[in-house]
Amino acid sequence: MASSSDTSITLIAKSAKAAFEQSQLIPSTARIDALAQITIQLEANKHDILAANRLDLDAAQAEVDAGRMSSSLLKRLDLTSSPDKWDAMIQGVKDVAALPDPTGVVNYAKQLDDGLDLYRVSCPIGVLLVIFEARPEVVVNIAALAIKSGNAAILKGGKESTHSVTLLSRVISTALSSTTLPSILIQSIRTRADVSALLTLDQYIDLVIPRGSNSLVRNIQNSTRIPVMGHADGLCSVYLDESANLEKALRVILDSKTNYPAACNSAETLIIHTSVLQNIWPKVATALLDASVELLCDAPSLSALQTLSPAPSNLNTRVRLAPQDAYDTEHLTLTLSVLTVTSLQSAIVHINEHGSHHTETIVTESSDAASAFCRGVDSAGAFVNASTRFADGFRYGFGTEVGISTGRIHARGPVGLEGLVSYKYVMKSVGDGGHIVGEFGTGGKKYKHTNIGATSVPFL
Amino acid sequence: MASSSDTSITLIAKSAKAAFEQSQLIPSTARIDALAQITIQLEANKHDILAANRLDLDAAQAEVDAGRMSSSLLKRLDLTSSPDKWDAMIQGVKDVAALPDPTGVVNYAKQLDDGLDLYRVSCPIGVLLVIFEARPEVVVNIAALAIKSGNAAILKGGKESTHSVTLLSRVISTALSSTTLPSILIQSIRTRADVSALLTLDQYIDLVIPRGSNSLVRNIQNSTRIPVMGHADGLCSVYLDESANLEKALRVILDSKTNYPAACNSAETLIIHTSVLQNIWPKVATALLDASVELLCDAPSLSALQTLSPAPSNLNTRVRLAPQDAYDTEHLTLTLSVLTVTSLQSAIVHINEHGSHHTETIVTESSDAASAFCRGVDSAGAFVNASTRFADGFRYGFGTEVGISTGRIHARGPVGLEGLVSYKYVMKSVGDGGHIVGEFGTGGKKYKHTNIGATSVPFL
Repeated sequence: MASSSDTSITLIAKSAKAAFEQSQLIPSTARIDALAQITIQLEANKHDILAANRLDLDAAQAEVDAGRMSSSLLKRLDLTSSPDKWDAMIQGVKDVAALPDPTGVVNYAKQLDDGLDLYRVSCPIGVLLVIFEARPEVVVNIAALAIKSGNAAILKGGKESTHSVTLLSRVISTALSSTTLPSILIQSIRTRADVSALLTLDQYIDLVIPRGSNSLVRNIQNSTRIPVMGHADGLCSVYLDESANLEKALRVILDSKTNYPAACNSAETLIIHTSVLQNIWPKVATALLDASVELLCDAPSLSALQTLSPAPSNLNTRVRLAPQDAYDTEHLTLTLSVLTVTSLQSAIVHINEHGSHHTETIVTESSDAASAFCRGVDSAGAFVNASTRFADGFRYGFGTEVGISTGRIHARGPVGLEGLVSYKYVMKSVGDGGHIVGEFGTGGKKYKHTNIGATSVPFL
Repeated sequence: MASSSDTSITLIAKSAKAAFEQSQLIPSTARIDALAQITIQLEANKHDILAANRLDLDAAQAEVDAGRMSSSLLKRLDLTSSPDKWDAMIQGVKDVAALPDPTGVVNYAKQLDDGLDLYRVSCPIGVLLVIFEARPEVVVNIAALAIKSGNAAILKGGKESTHSVTLLSRVISTALSSTTLPSILIQSIRTRADVSALLTLDQYIDLVIPRGSNSLVRNIQNSTRIPVMGHADGLCSVYLDESANLEKALRVILDSKTNYPAACNSAETLIIHTSVLQNIWPKVATALLDASVELLCDAPSLSALQTLSPAPSNLNTRVRLAPQDAYDTEHLTLTLSVLTVTSLQSAIVHINEHGSHHTETIVTESSDAASAFCRGVDSAGAFVNASTRFADGFRYGFGTEVGISTGRIHARGPVGLEGLVSYKYVMKSVGDGGHIVGEFGTGGKKYKHTNIGATSVPFL
């Protein structure tokens, strides 16, 4: 059984690679047609897709009733949980289709010699293995991104969404088969064993994109030679500088913590310069408590609240001494760890040691402090007087978001379609005899390295 | 012992990270000063460095005498093996110092709202672990590249060059200590056990760069969660299209194979369209044989030579039927595998399956064939009528070369200083109240996403 399954998994990977390679000879306009076909086929199969989704929901409801699944997970499974969810999924494909083509873009071009022009041109990466949880509409989103960027993709959804994901994936293949692109560009797999088998096939799989829990990402990183693009934690901080403005402090901290606490770009830690413990911090704390935030304070920040008169409401129920692990915890709820520091430098050191290199913000009126913070904080995002919640591909203007990377290789921070492309160098010799390196060097020709002003490759 | 060694290795990694973080607050001009100091200190310590090198050479000579080391390895160890080797090493540092700063460069900038400007700006990656073999001058080269790009580096040379590398590394630290940069930005380690310990410390090490054998690279990829940038094979091909021009074929194939056979960008396989087996191939084969190349032929290409009259000289001694593994072998010598195909498409499929995704070239007069080849070949370089040997950072105009990557994540093909930088997003809110996402969306503000024409960040 194991070997038969391994064989079929190898076939999936191999056929994905072959489909990718074959697709490189097809004009990129075919990808736009394919995305249009996908929206048509999704609408045509809406009834069946929602019926498959119903099967997943019924199974999930039984799990919820038995106390083995949360009702929030159930809600995320449901393609009809809000009236516009289906239409939003369809619109998402149309939006991706309308984005500029991320491939074929020249970002370096030099004439090396008369008749010898070199171009570095963006191109797809190859075969993506995307692993995600729960929300079945992600399969449509990822397929659209993969097709738009010219990649092949193998998709693995959560086991709770098997019926939905399998049918969505099949509908996408059907749509592809009515185009000039190979229908096998998008495939899906069902089990963790399939994932494990694919993680060993680095000759076929070029990039793994896990979208899920921290432990999922690290498990995958530990078990493959294939590059992994995934974000682990989102432990973001706000630093209240000694020159902070009260109104900005209130607005930025409240938004960073309470706008959407379950998001990875929400603040988990508030770092306060001691000099503002007595004036700004009590007002910030009161606003946070009024917004139902629980505060895990270090001794100085706790003491600053305890000595207030009158004491803030909820002081006894919603404020407590921070436990040992508070500053290493991604709460993802209305809980905020609070730390006091005596200098900007200490804040930077703390963030670099305890944060997740995602996004940090400083509240300050000092341009020197702003500059030092943005330089010193080793994170994908460093903001001044702006909410950490801005760290998002749509807000950054990418039109879409593949994920948010806390790594710093290939892509960092919110990742748009650019994260799904690589580049290659193409060069054409024009004239007699071709070009050879033996004619260059001591006593011979010299490399010109003249810039070429081109945005695409003329001979491709 | 093991735990004490692990502790000291952790300290090395931790101090490298701390030095990196500290250096981010220092103006990048300090890096130019540091490179100048390094050249001064190298010259001042030339006598001692060559004495240390002599110790390595004496030990190596004993190994060579005992038949345990090749004399070519001994030569690569020798910092005086050619009259200008020392000066070339010093000049290399000066050349790197003179290159444009790869950090601080803005490559995406948008105004999200009035008073809210977002910049994506290039920045160092962090701590690099560089593992290389034999040639001790590489430590100087790598240190210069790391410093220029603002990274910290931990270096591990071959055990044959321990004395040379340790002293070179110490001289570099001494040079750094006379600057505002931390002297601990560049450190060296000595043993494989040290490397193994560092490969587990992904909280401190951001990128591993192995420069050595295929097996070294794969072993490292298999034993770490840290991203690895290294090239494995260099199995490059030349494809002789049906419309090939004879003169171009001769020049490009000879240069690709014989200009420097030990280089990774030399051709290992020649693929021939059947239609040119009788006219072009015999002349190419004769020229290759005259250049002392051994040919491992498939049946049709062998037969085309055997039926020639007169038979090429060396036909019996230098031409034979290709063994099973010929097309998967990186010869690195004057040996060439020869394969016949019936179509361009078959050539592309063969290259994508058997090549190493490094560099391939087509000899053709057809622009359609050239375009299809460049699109279809899934390699870092795809050339038309030009030698594979052009695939090189200096020839491409980068001014330096960190290595050549056959991966397609982060960097592909010859890698210049750009391969040693990442980027971060910085954003500053100007005006009253700071910026919060809660004010955007349905019924609220809209994101402007207006392009900002800036090449550097005004507030850093």
